[in-house]
Amino acid sequence: MTSKHTGAQIVDGRRARGARTREALVAEAVQLASVEGLEGLSIAHLAARIGTAKSSVHASFGSKEALQVAVVAHTRDILIDLVIAPALKTEPGLQRLSALGEGWMSYLERKTFEGGCVLSSASLEMDGRPGPARDAIAAVMREWLDLLEDNIARGIAKGEITAGTDPAQLAFALNAVGMAANWQSQLFGETFSYDTGRTGWAQVLAQHKTPS
Amino acid sequence: MTSKHTGAQIVDGRRARGARTREALVAEAVQLASVEGLEGLSIAHLAARIGTAKSSVHASFGSKEALQVAVVAHTRDILIDLVIAPALKTEPGLQRLSALGEGWMSYLERKTFEGGCVLSSASLEMDGRPGPARDAIAAVMREWLDLLEDNIARGIAKGEITAGTDPAQLAFALNAVGMAANWQSQLFGETFSYDTGRTGWAQVLAQHKTPS
Repeated sequence: MTSKHTGAQIVDGRRARGARTREALVAEAVQLASVEGLEGLSIAHLAARIGTAKSSVHASFGSKEALQVAVVAHTRDILIDLVIAPALKTEPGLQRLSALGEGWMSYLERKTFEGGCVLSSASLEMDGRPGPARDAIAAVMREWLDLLEDNIARGIAKGEITAGTDPAQLAFALNAVGMAANWQSQLFGETFSYDTGRTGWAQVLAQHKTPS
Repeated sequence: MTSKHTGAQIVDGRRARGARTREALVAEAVQLASVEGLEGLSIAHLAARIGTAKSSVHASFGSKEALQVAVVAHTRDILIDLVIAPALKTEPGLQRLSALGEGWMSYLERKTFEGGCVLSSASLEMDGRPGPARDAIAAVMREWLDLLEDNIARGIAKGEITAGTDPAQLAFALNAVGMAANWQSQLFGETFSYDTGRTGWAQVLAQHKTPS
């Protein structure tokens, strides 16, 4: 009984260390992917960056595809913490849509990722490469558009957003503003102001807001 | 005199053949870059795709960077033919802005590039890689935004667009719609309708149009 218990503790301890290592590897892989692209990410490259053996990275993920999927999942977690969670503390509908825009812009402004938003660049990079990584990105982006659409529908139901508004069309327009802010800041650097993104987001919402 | 003339003809003939080969290589490189990314493009990969010797591709470009810059320039030429030239036949200002949006959407709809717009994906891909290719993309995109801004300014001067409109802000919003249409069609395929992009473009213009 005691030895079994100890055995379980050892296994748990190993698992916890494995999880910590895997978590650290994924966090590093996200930064690497933001610069090199999701396709440029490789187990060898990640091992070299961390200064560990290729075999140990391989043991944690098994394949490049599994590493790519883990990077998408970890990026999703970061976006939940930085963009989604703060917005969930506001009222659903128009207020939450504003908070999501502000969360997105300040997340970009803080340069969370070395090379810009992993999901934005990966979604363009992976289009010609069907597979689990591409499916994972499409699923996360669909989830994000659904969150926008749900809040648009709530805003319409509450009378904050005009009745004729098409939730999918408005979600497309809002998402476009955020993608473009990421893109222009990546391409033009310091000469791009995130306030252009903030104003863009507010203007799209203003167009569909019920006149008060 | 005669032999000199003949010599010049030979040189001209060689140049013309060289130019034809280079043009065919660049056209193929643009398609390859749309799938593999501008960074994924290599002289070896292009030679393999065309079924020619690596040395002959190298002779035409000299370096991967020169090949990337040539791809950006050729993509710009394609966009001038398909998007800009038709719009230049319309009146400057609001009418031309509408035509540019329609040109962009129908260019995307026709799937001109195997893997989507080279400039859209390359600009996100190259952000962490300073150099001539990145500079070439930034210059083309700056040129595109300037074209939008110029027509917005013309629209304001003609009284078609409201006086308080900020040309850079409106150009950002229009460009965002086009980038997002490319992005969603790449990621979601057939389930994305370019009419969402067309409506998005029209809604942005409608918001800034002088009430009639």
